[in-house]
Amino acid sequence: MALNFEILATCGQARRGRVTTAHGPIETPAFMPVGTKGAVKGMTTQELEAAGASVMLANLYHLSLRPGIEAIETLGGIHRFTGWRRPILTDSGGFQVFSLAKLRRMDADGVTFRSHLDGSLVRFTPENVVEAQCRLGVDIAMVLDECSSWPISQEDAATSLDLTLRWAERARTAWPEDHPGSLFGIVQGSVYRDLRLRAVESLRRLDFHGYAVGGVSVGEGTEDRRAVVEWTAPELPANKPRYLMGLGTPLDILHAVGCGVDLFDCVMPARNARHGVLFTRQGILRIKNARFKTDERPVDEACSCPLCARQSRALLHHLMRAGELTGAVLATLHNVRYYLDFMADLREGVELGTLSELAQEITDRYTAS
Amino acid sequence: MALNFEILATCGQARRGRVTTAHGPIETPAFMPVGTKGAVKGMTTQELEAAGASVMLANLYHLSLRPGIEAIETLGGIHRFTGWRRPILTDSGGFQVFSLAKLRRMDADGVTFRSHLDGSLVRFTPENVVEAQCRLGVDIAMVLDECSSWPISQEDAATSLDLTLRWAERARTAWPEDHPGSLFGIVQGSVYRDLRLRAVESLRRLDFHGYAVGGVSVGEGTEDRRAVVEWTAPELPANKPRYLMGLGTPLDILHAVGCGVDLFDCVMPARNARHGVLFTRQGILRIKNARFKTDERPVDEACSCPLCARQSRALLHHLMRAGELTGAVLATLHNVRYYLDFMADLREGVELGTLSELAQEITDRYTAS
Repeated sequence: MALNFEILATCGQARRGRVTTAHGPIETPAFMPVGTKGAVKGMTTQELEAAGASVMLANLYHLSLRPGIEAIETLGGIHRFTGWRRPILTDSGGFQVFSLAKLRRMDADGVTFRSHLDGSLVRFTPENVVEAQCRLGVDIAMVLDECSSWPISQEDAATSLDLTLRWAERARTAWPEDHPGSLFGIVQGSVYRDLRLRAVESLRRLDFHGYAVGGVSVGEGTEDRRAVVEWTAPELPANKPRYLMGLGTPLDILHAVGCGVDLFDCVMPARNARHGVLFTRQGILRIKNARFKTDERPVDEACSCPLCARQSRALLHHLMRAGELTGAVLATLHNVRYYLDFMADLREGVELGTLSELAQEITDRYTAS
Repeated sequence: MALNFEILATCGQARRGRVTTAHGPIETPAFMPVGTKGAVKGMTTQELEAAGASVMLANLYHLSLRPGIEAIETLGGIHRFTGWRRPILTDSGGFQVFSLAKLRRMDADGVTFRSHLDGSLVRFTPENVVEAQCRLGVDIAMVLDECSSWPISQEDAATSLDLTLRWAERARTAWPEDHPGSLFGIVQGSVYRDLRLRAVESLRRLDFHGYAVGGVSVGEGTEDRRAVVEWTAPELPANKPRYLMGLGTPLDILHAVGCGVDLFDCVMPARNARHGVLFTRQGILRIKNARFKTDERPVDEACSCPLCARQSRALLHHLMRAGELTGAVLATLHNVRYYLDFMADLREGVELGTLSELAQEITDRYTAS
């Protein structure tokens, strides 16, 4: 009943795969646009499909607080509720409990916190987080974990990891084997190699349907972040999908694909778009910059998004300067399309065995811009 | 070179027509979505086309101040700049000079004001406003007028109208006959029938390509507003398009179509959408209302907009309550589509001679909601 994962090609450690779910296939390496509250900010589901997204991410923390799991269940589940017909992965919300919620009280059994919306008391346990995601009807559920803060000593990181691993075991036990979705474990352990490897070992034994690397990009530098990916990703079971949570720039993704990661999510393309920062095949454009005022070229000549198909850098410059809603919308359509096209290029690179040439080209593009 | 206007059918005073421009036809009665600064707030040009818009409105005042006429001309004109390929009408900006600009100084020759953006000094004259719209390459240009304030005495309204009519004559003289676009005169005269009729008579003699009724919905009540339309519209030349500026609700449009008006624009569908007020075939929905939290029906069963095609009232309720950008986008897509479908219904009503039955149905719908 759970997902099926095939590896279609490899190139070094990089994998070209296919995750098959009840709501269709995900060609990997894949980028999952972030629809935290059930929608990618500024995009319709039709536009998201047209841009080539095969899977959307949503967030259990946010949806639990509003509109609530019961409301979504009553409305026929998360697919009917959001109108997104392809696969959906929900993050368990562990990260948000630790970054957004008020008056958080941890205990061995779970975490109690006050909603940042209305102050109401909410309790998350490994079991009820699994149950909530099952009720939503998601394709991929994530276990509840403790995303350790940064910086953290090795001792404290170890204590936190112990909790995360006990919770992972409870989540695995709670998972109903007849559910059509799948459950992923999450590797924590901060920047400590021993801890990361211990986490991998423990989670492996629990036989999840897939494995995520969490607790990255929480404040540590690029070098630490990349080291964690390099130690961890290749140790995860080769026959299961691997998901690097919350990353990142195109260069971060390129690096992680090279380490054998299959799935990604990041708010960056949409958030940067709203600030006028555009990703292109020529590198970064800060579109509000005065030099774009009369630039009649499209944002990216090779892009087929609704913006690049018809409009100039000058128009987007104008709309963003004027604070027009349409500026944010068009920039988002472009950046999300860029990320999805970028993943398609990486998939082709793995298939053709040209990933390292492609990597050089991409690195040059971004270091020059 | 100017537009061509044919009347295909009539039903009482109502007309079913076709305006043909260099950028394609406009089937009338038509609603022109408002893209003040070159884009309808929250919509791509592709979505606007898909919704069935045949003409977009933009605003000379706003575009003159930013990015400036020269910038748009350099970029190949307003169609290339905005990416909107169908007809464009620009309002001359008279209304905005009087509502937005600072330190306005009127004289017989024109008006000098400070930009509300950067305080720079700008001068509008009947001649330079015509010239600017020609440089933009619009399909329909509007003369510079003085939109009189409200309330206003008949004497002051008469003085203001005299100025507007002198400016109209100068604008008509300034219009280059070889320009592929067209120039519309604007009837002012506040709520005074004599003044409105005098304005019609004077403008008729100037032989514009079309005629607008301006200075409505500036604070006067529904009865006064409708009376102005009833006196004025039928007196305008029957063989030219008639445009009622800045109106209105579906009931306002229905009434004006019945008086023989052909063209409309209004920010209402998009602005109301952003506030969660949805137009539907069952009347108005205030989607943030708690009763929609678990309402699984589409906003409007009979609508084919991207929202109604896939999503429920419950989702829109959730997104608007959460202040999500996508809520505003989806609601705008719906409301603009609703207005455009509404106009298509009115066109069919005129063609089939069933406008009065349709009018009754629409009136019942909106008075019940």
